[in-house]
Amino acid sequence: MSNTTSMTPDEIDAFLAAPRLAHFATVTATGKPRVRPIWYLWRDGTFWLTTRAEARKPVRDLEHGSPWASLSIASEDRPYSAVVATGRPEVLPKDEATLRDISFRYGEGPGRRWLAVAMREPDRVVLKLIPASLSSWDYGKRG
Amino acid sequence: MSNTTSMTPDEIDAFLAAPRLAHFATVTATGKPRVRPIWYLWRDGTFWLTTRAEARKPVRDLEHGSPWASLSIASEDRPYSAVVATGRPEVLPKDEATLRDISFRYGEGPGRRWLAVAMREPDRVVLKLIPASLSSWDYGKRG
Repeated sequence: MSNTTSMTPDEIDAFLAAPRLAHFATVTATGKPRVRPIWYLWRDGTFWLTTRAEARKPVRDLEHGSPWASLSIASEDRPYSAVVATGRPEVLPKDEATLRDISFRYGEGPGRRWLAVAMREPDRVVLKLIPASLSSWDYGKRG
Repeated sequence: MSNTTSMTPDEIDAFLAAPRLAHFATVTATGKPRVRPIWYLWRDGTFWLTTRAEARKPVRDLEHGSPWASLSIASEDRPYSAVVATGRPEVLPKDEATLRDISFRYGEGPGRRWLAVAMREPDRVVLKLIPASLSSWDYGKRG
């Protein structure tokens, strides 16, 4: 990718403000890639994610596969734009404010119902990912 | 995920027929995850993908990181549905028919222009991925 198609920091913030899904990749204990869709919140240069430590596998992957995770977020339509970031997520206890801020981005009504369930899940955690690297593409900028 | 939210084989075919992007995860030579958006074609139980062996890194990852790759495809809107698959991609020389079938799914006009460029790229390859595992979720089936 040439530099001409990357986004400015403000454009990255605007792109990541839209409630798209992220696709979150980790490495399993046996060294295989694992990826699945996940909600995210981008705030002050940090991705906030949430998952379940037991019911899902990402936390196990971070402990036994690789401490690194990679995120991919893309527009579904032309002109394509995308952000890809990699970092070492920090696994934090869940807190209601962060879970609300993440889930309400994707609709307040369903987010409220989701939050009530999530707060009762004993293995629900928050992941904080500060990108060690971040790449962006905006094909709309070409030509 | 409970079984009640998974898709039938026909539903998986219908879901994967839509021209969504896939997010393709590999493992780097240093054991980190790497993920990026990619076009795909799902035909007869096989994913067909295309990338550039030099300009992009996935082929290097498959040779020096892990021979396994993982794909995540999701609907952006509620009720969410998603397919995640893992397999060992076979790296094949490019052929025009496969590149056309992949790219035209995402629009014939732009696909035609893309194909003309892609056929001239010396490192353009096709990836054939037969899932060793495939999971699906259809949250619209709940309740």
